[in-house]
Amino acid sequence: MSERAIGIFDSGVGGLTVFKEIHRLFPGEELLYLGDTARVPYGTKSPGTVLRYALEAAAFLVDQRVKMLVVACNTASSVALEALAERFSLPVLGVIAPGARKAVSVTRNCRIGVIGTEGTVKSGAYTRAIHALAPEVEVFAAPCPLFVPLAEEGWSDHPVARLAAEEYLEPLMARGIDTLVLGCTHYPLLKKTLGAILGDGVTLVDSAEETANEVAGVLARDDLARRGPLLPPRFFVTDVPTRFERVGGAFLGTPLCGVDRVEIDGALFHPLDDSLRRR
Amino acid sequence: MSERAIGIFDSGVGGLTVFKEIHRLFPGEELLYLGDTARVPYGTKSPGTVLRYALEAAAFLVDQRVKMLVVACNTASSVALEALAERFSLPVLGVIAPGARKAVSVTRNCRIGVIGTEGTVKSGAYTRAIHALAPEVEVFAAPCPLFVPLAEEGWSDHPVARLAAEEYLEPLMARGIDTLVLGCTHYPLLKKTLGAILGDGVTLVDSAEETANEVAGVLARDDLARRGPLLPPRFFVTDVPTRFERVGGAFLGTPLCGVDRVEIDGALFHPLDDSLRRR
Repeated sequence: MSERAIGIFDSGVGGLTVFKEIHRLFPGEELLYLGDTARVPYGTKSPGTVLRYALEAAAFLVDQRVKMLVVACNTASSVALEALAERFSLPVLGVIAPGARKAVSVTRNCRIGVIGTEGTVKSGAYTRAIHALAPEVEVFAAPCPLFVPLAEEGWSDHPVARLAAEEYLEPLMARGIDTLVLGCTHYPLLKKTLGAILGDGVTLVDSAEETANEVAGVLARDDLARRGPLLPPRFFVTDVPTRFERVGGAFLGTPLCGVDRVEIDGALFHPLDDSLRRR
Repeated sequence: MSERAIGIFDSGVGGLTVFKEIHRLFPGEELLYLGDTARVPYGTKSPGTVLRYALEAAAFLVDQRVKMLVVACNTASSVALEALAERFSLPVLGVIAPGARKAVSVTRNCRIGVIGTEGTVKSGAYTRAIHALAPEVEVFAAPCPLFVPLAEEGWSDHPVARLAAEEYLEPLMARGIDTLVLGCTHYPLLKKTLGAILGDGVTLVDSAEETANEVAGVLARDDLARRGPLLPPRFFVTDVPTRFERVGGAFLGTPLCGVDRVEIDGALFHPLDDSLRRR
């Protein structure tokens, strides 16, 4: 049992799809969400830069004394998960492993597609995670850089999204995939559009849902579930909250307000400094 | 006469369209270009955050002893130009005033459209600049958030770009504009697509070309033209150069290599600190 909060972070609003699933499964948990909106997006940036940003975001949440860290960003999970788990002595969950596990469990023909940001696809993290579970599976990955701006523009069901999705998915469909991992926390917003193009023969794997299931496992395993009175979630961002409240509210389907701005860049430590706090 | 370089900065590759025009008009000038790729884009961020980033970018170039600063980014020009001109004692040019001047000079029906990032449109900078010259002109501004990712994806002439442009331009066309300011340094890449939709009745104003003309004026006015032997331009970025070299090379139409990575965030000064160097 632990009364502490669960800390969740992403580069911006995308991780709210993960937040939403965790909140739905565990209404009794207190959730702290940090969006690094002053430096969003992570998906086009280098592994070293994303690692630095992720360490700073995590350090902020650890300072809030969270009991668990959820990296609700595929790019950050791809390049920073190991470093985060090494640096901080609390459970650290990413979105890659849960998505990979689910994909392996649902594929019938052993041909899995993965879509994500440039950073996530380049890292090869999904391919490694899938092959660690099932070396015989063939993985076909494709970056879809326009999906994030399309989702943030509120154009997830727009003909522009449909046309872009047809272009991005065509090579994956040509490979005969029967499973597609939505390897970016923004992409669940495009589910309807993607499903219409792929048809019933392809199962969509939503990392958000799978990650929430993984949180359940850790809460049970480490006896971390919260029993105290209900507490509303708290949201933090690194730029002024206006845009996060507007776009994030649309993501969650409920108004988002009372978001606090915090500074995390360079304030806490140098990324190569070993003096990080451990608990 | 001055042998010093001209400093140009942008959040990323977009300002290369301005760089290209300046380089074309003044092959004898040495050009230093800085792309703040670790924090790109600026267009979705708050004025305060963009101001801080612009001050840091400018301070880096001033440290390189440039003779003139060109803010090759509409968002940064919108919110930071005045502060930059106050802080540094060298000529500081933005892209807003040149574009506004050109637009006012070409419009026949006094109905000007402006497209740009969310930040640029929200700032109202173009409307103010146009009204300062011609209060009778009606200005209709529209943010086009997908144009930057479309240009960076290399999809400027793609059907997806065409469809998105039709959606964004429709309200401006309904207002009967005869002039459209491309108020983002990425947008000149979409000229062909935009022109095809707007037809011959609408003149496109490219800030890049107009800004290069403004540089000519300052070089002449302050007698700053360079007479020394030709020097190749130098490029700096704040994230690893790989993506900048790839996307920027496509922007320039020539291979881009030998790009140096530098750190500028928080390294130089606190934005509210008055101890900035003056020359």
